[in-house]
Amino acid sequence: MKVFLDCIPCFVRQALHSARQATNNKRIHEEVLRRILRLSAELDMSQSPPAIGRQIHRLTKELTGSDDPYREIKSRFNNLALRLYPELRKRVINSGNPLDTAIRLAIAGNIIDLGVKTSIEESEIEGVIRDCLTADFDSRAVEAFANAVNQAERILYLADNAGEIVLDRLLIERLPIEKVAIAVKGSPVINDATMEDALIAGLPRIVEVIDNGSDAPGTILETCSEPFRGRFQDVDLIIAKGQGNYETLSDSDKNIFFILKAKCPVIARDLGCEVGEMILRKSRAFSDIGDLVKEAE
Amino acid sequence: MKVFLDCIPCFVRQALHSARQATNNKRIHEEVLRRILRLSAELDMSQSPPAIGRQIHRLTKELTGSDDPYREIKSRFNNLALRLYPELRKRVINSGNPLDTAIRLAIAGNIIDLGVKTSIEESEIEGVIRDCLTADFDSRAVEAFANAVNQAERILYLADNAGEIVLDRLLIERLPIEKVAIAVKGSPVINDATMEDALIAGLPRIVEVIDNGSDAPGTILETCSEPFRGRFQDVDLIIAKGQGNYETLSDSDKNIFFILKAKCPVIARDLGCEVGEMILRKSRAFSDIGDLVKEAE
Repeated sequence: MKVFLDCIPCFVRQALHSARQATNNKRIHEEVLRRILRLSAELDMSQSPPAIGRQIHRLTKELTGSDDPYREIKSRFNNLALRLYPELRKRVINSGNPLDTAIRLAIAGNIIDLGVKTSIEESEIEGVIRDCLTADFDSRAVEAFANAVNQAERILYLADNAGEIVLDRLLIERLPIEKVAIAVKGSPVINDATMEDALIAGLPRIVEVIDNGSDAPGTILETCSEPFRGRFQDVDLIIAKGQGNYETLSDSDKNIFFILKAKCPVIARDLGCEVGEMILRKSRAFSDIGDLVKEAE
Repeated sequence: MKVFLDCIPCFVRQALHSARQATNNKRIHEEVLRRILRLSAELDMSQSPPAIGRQIHRLTKELTGSDDPYREIKSRFNNLALRLYPELRKRVINSGNPLDTAIRLAIAGNIIDLGVKTSIEESEIEGVIRDCLTADFDSRAVEAFANAVNQAERILYLADNAGEIVLDRLLIERLPIEKVAIAVKGSPVINDATMEDALIAGLPRIVEVIDNGSDAPGTILETCSEPFRGRFQDVDLIIAKGQGNYETLSDSDKNIFFILKAKCPVIARDLGCEVGEMILRKSRAFSDIGDLVKEAE
């Protein structure tokens, strides 16, 4: 998906927020703002939003001298999600449809996205969880997802953000974990999950965790490591979490299920949904014959 | 009030929105965006937000070739407000405290501000009116306002936006109109009210209407006409409506009552209030002896 002009002011806002996380020096905040405005004025608009986000956040990290401005925020959301996890896990297990419930909770976790919002209240997350457990949701998509998972030999789960990754664990636990690897970012960008966050979520104890070698807030294969690219090509099912992964993989020819909460008008327009909607959607390239037959019925 | 760094991405968003109102040509949208980003990178940050807004919107109007990108939107909101007006007027007249009700409705009208939001639904305005009629509101400030109005010899009411100006009429009608003049902008900027909107609101039939000769989305005296500046200095009470007038006059040494809805975090921080709060506040310079005595009691 190509960037929209609307994304640019949003990136400028993001960079300012990031600079403020990195330092209290107001002179640096202003310098970051001016440099990001200059960079933005000359951008190649044929890129995806995460390709631009990568440039914006690289420059912000360079100018502030912080390699991880969101470290503290990520830790806070990991801790919050870990506090909620035991109770949510019970809800999944005791649910009439554990896979459906786990997907809903993984989507709720996608609210922890500091690319879209500058701040998220802890109470807001609990509200989103409640809403996601009861909102209308496409049961046919859940069924198609279950079929795809059953038929797949090798599954790659592309994680999105810190905190969120703890709720992803609820969904990972419903998958045939021997077939699954979960991928995190190679180095920090916004509040995207890295290996550190996967460790805090306890994921390496239950599933293979790899990093993608990249600092893009999405999955841009050219920026990923050789081993990750090999793995990406090798698997027969990809579960892509969050807006950044949708923005970078929506035109991919791989079998992908996108799982996200549509949080901004640009994404909602691209998906043809309302802002706030829960999305579980197959990639256009998905060509599972069983599903095609099913849809033809 | 000086601009905050947070205002800059908001101005970029505003310019893009304005360009889209002016033309469907996407090449021009992108050109406006890039030029505004370049302008923003070099801004003098010691200016007030409306001083910067004036530059941003001048450049946008120049690049799009439209002298009034918000013409259609202004007309739509004038018409909406005129439809609501008769019923709201009855509410004021039949209210236990007509002045209080009229101030609340004038504040509700301040939601029609396309500097802060890119779109406002008509249904949203009716909701805001309902909320403003019942929300907590400082009755001492209303009393102080009534005293100031009674003691004043000459009152200048600085209007804010189109549509909103129709609801301002409800408040103007509660004032001693022979003492009052209402000022609109000299030429279009965002959806700020000009003489055309005052005419549509029927104001010249009941009160003197002047224009300030300026295209700033606030009141920057240096950009206003000589006659307006004379009038501004001459009056002993100014009623300043909306965020733009607060941003440009908050440090003035005139006796001013600011009337607005605090719609963005930057303004709310400056006012020390919550976003969404209704504001009726005297300027710091206000030195009405009666009020001082009253407050000392």
